[in-house]
Amino acid sequence: MEKIKIVSELAKKTNSKIVFLIIDGVGGIRTIEHPQTELELAHTPNLDALAAKSMCGRSLPATFGITPGSGPGHLALFGYDPLKPEHNIGRGVLEVLGIDFDIQPDDLCARGNFAVKNPDGTIADRRAGRLSTERCIELCNKIQESLNRIEGVTVLIKPVKEYRFALIIRGENLSSALADTDPQQVGLKPLEPIPTENTESAKHTAEVVKKVLRAIESVLEKEPDANTALLRGFSKDPCLPKMQELYKLTPAAIATYPLYRGVARLLGMDVYRPADETISAEMELLKELYDKYDFFFIHIKKTDSYGEDGNRESKIKVIEQVDTELPTILALNPEVLVVTGDHSTPTQIKAHSWHPVPLMIYSRYCDVDDVKQFNESACDRGRLGIIPATEIMPLALANAGKLIKYGA
Amino acid sequence: MEKIKIVSELAKKTNSKIVFLIIDGVGGIRTIEHPQTELELAHTPNLDALAAKSMCGRSLPATFGITPGSGPGHLALFGYDPLKPEHNIGRGVLEVLGIDFDIQPDDLCARGNFAVKNPDGTIADRRAGRLSTERCIELCNKIQESLNRIEGVTVLIKPVKEYRFALIIRGENLSSALADTDPQQVGLKPLEPIPTENTESAKHTAEVVKKVLRAIESVLEKEPDANTALLRGFSKDPCLPKMQELYKLTPAAIATYPLYRGVARLLGMDVYRPADETISAEMELLKELYDKYDFFFIHIKKTDSYGEDGNRESKIKVIEQVDTELPTILALNPEVLVVTGDHSTPTQIKAHSWHPVPLMIYSRYCDVDDVKQFNESACDRGRLGIIPATEIMPLALANAGKLIKYGA
Repeated sequence: MEKIKIVSELAKKTNSKIVFLIIDGVGGIRTIEHPQTELELAHTPNLDALAAKSMCGRSLPATFGITPGSGPGHLALFGYDPLKPEHNIGRGVLEVLGIDFDIQPDDLCARGNFAVKNPDGTIADRRAGRLSTERCIELCNKIQESLNRIEGVTVLIKPVKEYRFALIIRGENLSSALADTDPQQVGLKPLEPIPTENTESAKHTAEVVKKVLRAIESVLEKEPDANTALLRGFSKDPCLPKMQELYKLTPAAIATYPLYRGVARLLGMDVYRPADETISAEMELLKELYDKYDFFFIHIKKTDSYGEDGNRESKIKVIEQVDTELPTILALNPEVLVVTGDHSTPTQIKAHSWHPVPLMIYSRYCDVDDVKQFNESACDRGRLGIIPATEIMPLALANAGKLIKYGA
Repeated sequence: MEKIKIVSELAKKTNSKIVFLIIDGVGGIRTIEHPQTELELAHTPNLDALAAKSMCGRSLPATFGITPGSGPGHLALFGYDPLKPEHNIGRGVLEVLGIDFDIQPDDLCARGNFAVKNPDGTIADRRAGRLSTERCIELCNKIQESLNRIEGVTVLIKPVKEYRFALIIRGENLSSALADTDPQQVGLKPLEPIPTENTESAKHTAEVVKKVLRAIESVLEKEPDANTALLRGFSKDPCLPKMQELYKLTPAAIATYPLYRGVARLLGMDVYRPADETISAEMELLKELYDKYDFFFIHIKKTDSYGEDGNRESKIKVIEQVDTELPTILALNPEVLVVTGDHSTPTQIKAHSWHPVPLMIYSRYCDVDDVKQFNESACDRGRLGIIPATEIMPLALANAGKLIKYGA
């Protein structure tokens, strides 16, 4: 039987609490030029003391060699196999989640680019000269008005960043079985939104999207910097099983960035935004919420951002800030505390990577191994070895006494 | 292809011998209060000397975070994936195996409770005041007579312990697709044995079970301490492939407790009961049987019992007894000797747990690693790492020279 189903059948409600401290992109690599990782260079007395009381290892976000995006990386942490087609969160949905929009089951989502067409209809610039975010907001506002006149559906166009926008079409009988209109290459004409399934719903949706594109173009023809829009990643809420039903948890998410809040919302978490973007504000929120929930996902963003910038010093500093704030969590005395990341973002690579992430699982019954530091070299000697990230959730539930015995 | 099928296709008969020494619940955990496990505290010179000649690691009975019952735990050791629905041994079957009853393919098994109903038909006590085992035997004897009069089937009622009994209905065309009659809660009425499948066989079986329940109640109405019976876990022999056909082995089991003998019998092992419950009696039996078989499952029970009692000292003592007896096995010079448990039973938890179990596989060709002790901390540094328990059997067969090459 599938792992998540076994776990679900064995899950029971208890009073014990589980905290997932997810340090985005925390994992690093050891190279000849930089033989120590960011975690190894950081001064982390609190994380190290916790490692000495924990079970350690490495978490493999997707599978060997596969670099996960933030969506799959987080799904795995919460026990959802990110490689399962039903667990796929579409690009459009991710874009819309990224602007903190509350997606409804009837919403069809797509990501859009403002672009420039040549007089012959071929694409001259897929990003409309990387127009500014301000200009993107202006264009979206102008277009929104004409979209209100499309019959039978509600269409929302929302600025994202620079030339990027999110499109939400809300209505009955909409299908996500539509091909991208973005040809992904200059010199080619934009594509039609072709149905990829032979269903009435897909054909109907294709007609709606054509109307939307015509409405967008009719506004843009008066503008100097963009005259068309390219759409891709048509998708809807994948309707994943919620953590409440799946694990009998009452889960809360604390995150500063919209995408992570969005993924958490899809999984049934109540989502909270801290007073500001600091880690200490997130910890304050945890204290406030602590009595109301039995599962907490705390997301630390900046380690990943600095990892992508290749900024070793700043990534190290964020890790040290997390270390400084750790005692706030410990003082709450959760039955289970998991510390790991959703993937590695080595500063040498300046991008997400496929390397497994240092992992520690603390509980009274975790079975303490010999690891006394929280970093790559130390966790490599942990008892867990390299485990799929999807195994963290079952282990956390077991350690919290939330899983009954399997069979007699 | 499924692992067990690949192994089966490659298995060949040889003269080499494999011994599985299964120390039930032997695994322990390291906590802050008790930083050493029972295996680490025990004086085990023989096990340690064997570890120095073996390949070590940890065996994961079911999957990460899942605590197995004894049934699934043992199935895994013999290579049968315990999470596969076809490998599920029903509750009723386990109860009947637990009284050392030889289940036939036509037998429908259930576990029963003697219980007390109120005048309005609701359950007042699901366990009939936890009546004594003596009284349970008396009641079963009285009831058996009236069950002999049910037409078309043979019905056996066998005392288990206190208020618990086992029911076996033997006849043609019986189905296990019946719902429990035990509502699992006082204040509710017992349920009808409702067919869970729309088949003639299930409907017929439901009628038979109703007759059985009426016969039981008609006897009990004259008794002061119980007036009804609750049935659950209707199930039949899952007809698992036997180890003879699967692995071309001639297997024997040596076990003192009925449940383990029962599971071994389901897998095709010839089952032997030692002269008494001591480990040395089990070893005597091994010596006697050694020439007749090529696979031996020796089950040591008391480590688990003391683990469940939270009795560290006694669990340690049993481990030391095993160590003392180990030379008897070594003197027989089996080609392969596996030492592990079916799951962990840490004395700190006083129950089965999800933690992987120390494992060593000895053979002349096992590929000796650096581990020189048989315990959790040492095995954590073994070359095998954490492997599913279902991989032990293929490794044992390979080490015994009983698997041919896969492909050319």
